[in-house]
Amino acid sequence: MFTSERLRQQISFLKEIDNLKQILRQTVLVKDQRQENDAEHSWHLAMLVVVLSEYSNDSSIDLLRTVKMTLIHDIIEIDAGDTFCYSKHDKQEKTEREREAAHRIFCLLPEQQAQEYIDLWEEFETMNTPEAKFAAAVDRLQPLLLNFYSEGYAWRKHGVKRSQVIERNHHIADGSSELWRFAEALIDESVKRGFLLNG
Amino acid sequence: MFTSERLRQQISFLKEIDNLKQILRQTVLVKDQRQENDAEHSWHLAMLVVVLSEYSNDSSIDLLRTVKMTLIHDIIEIDAGDTFCYSKHDKQEKTEREREAAHRIFCLLPEQQAQEYIDLWEEFETMNTPEAKFAAAVDRLQPLLLNFYSEGYAWRKHGVKRSQVIERNHHIADGSSELWRFAEALIDESVKRGFLLNG
Repeated sequence: MFTSERLRQQISFLKEIDNLKQILRQTVLVKDQRQENDAEHSWHLAMLVVVLSEYSNDSSIDLLRTVKMTLIHDIIEIDAGDTFCYSKHDKQEKTEREREAAHRIFCLLPEQQAQEYIDLWEEFETMNTPEAKFAAAVDRLQPLLLNFYSEGYAWRKHGVKRSQVIERNHHIADGSSELWRFAEALIDESVKRGFLLNG
Repeated sequence: MFTSERLRQQISFLKEIDNLKQILRQTVLVKDQRQENDAEHSWHLAMLVVVLSEYSNDSSIDLLRTVKMTLIHDIIEIDAGDTFCYSKHDKQEKTEREREAAHRIFCLLPEQQAQEYIDLWEEFETMNTPEAKFAAAVDRLQPLLLNFYSEGYAWRKHGVKRSQVIERNHHIADGSSELWRFAEALIDESVKRGFLLNG
């Protein structure tokens, strides 16, 4: 059925990542408070990147690479699962699980493509390029938006406090000072409206 | 709360498009036969574009513009709804409904960005650039893959025939001859395995 071994590998990867649509996050959708899944989240992030790129601290980021990063950054959760960002977990153990997942899933692809995506995922994780910093910033901003517009659904469910949200999200500033100013205002407004505990 | 009117407009758009996650398609997911939604579909398409771009008939397509096109191509369905591709419908009425939706949703954005996305959406619809042809090709290939790997779930449900699938999808060849060769083999294999009616 496949016209080449290369295409067979690529289609095998594209079939496997259909499973990202099964991985649920804690954040809920604005309209019906259904839990968001990782594929929907990744699409929304890519949209944030293209719409908000003008606010990147570095004005010359490579937009295609940043978008690719948001598209693939959660694929490892097909194996490794989603970890709620305010839960306590063993970071070392999480990192190993995620690295194994990256290897299994991306290596369904032909070698060079596999390497490209593993590198992109590691770049996102280490956050030491302007692209990764901006991708990480929108990866934090998007759940803040959903939390705000769902009246703090996930925050209230888990009894999350303002200080935890600040601690978890302040590195938005590394990717975009302007979006962090907005995020801080959003957090303050959330406390004011009772969506988020003060403290 | 917003640091500028421009940012308020952009966030208003990014909140509105959260509703794309509510628009269900006829195609079902490989793992659990749940109906796919438009946000998941758009993410999957963007992944097909980046992984399979080497098969574009035009080897110099602008990848970022093609990815943007797949990310935004279904946003109009928030208002206009999904139309099953094998159903009979009034094309003129559908086009008008979609144009109104494009205007309402994209015009939440600042003027220049709104125009960029309306232009991109129209480019996708008219399919007269290499980027739009390739985006349209993967927009057809992705549901073929899901139909095949879900053993023809949506095809069997609607009694779809091989000739309808060929008629509906043959323009994959305009974007990629190689992917159309593969799609034809996939369709033949689907008939052989009883996922799709012959005829």
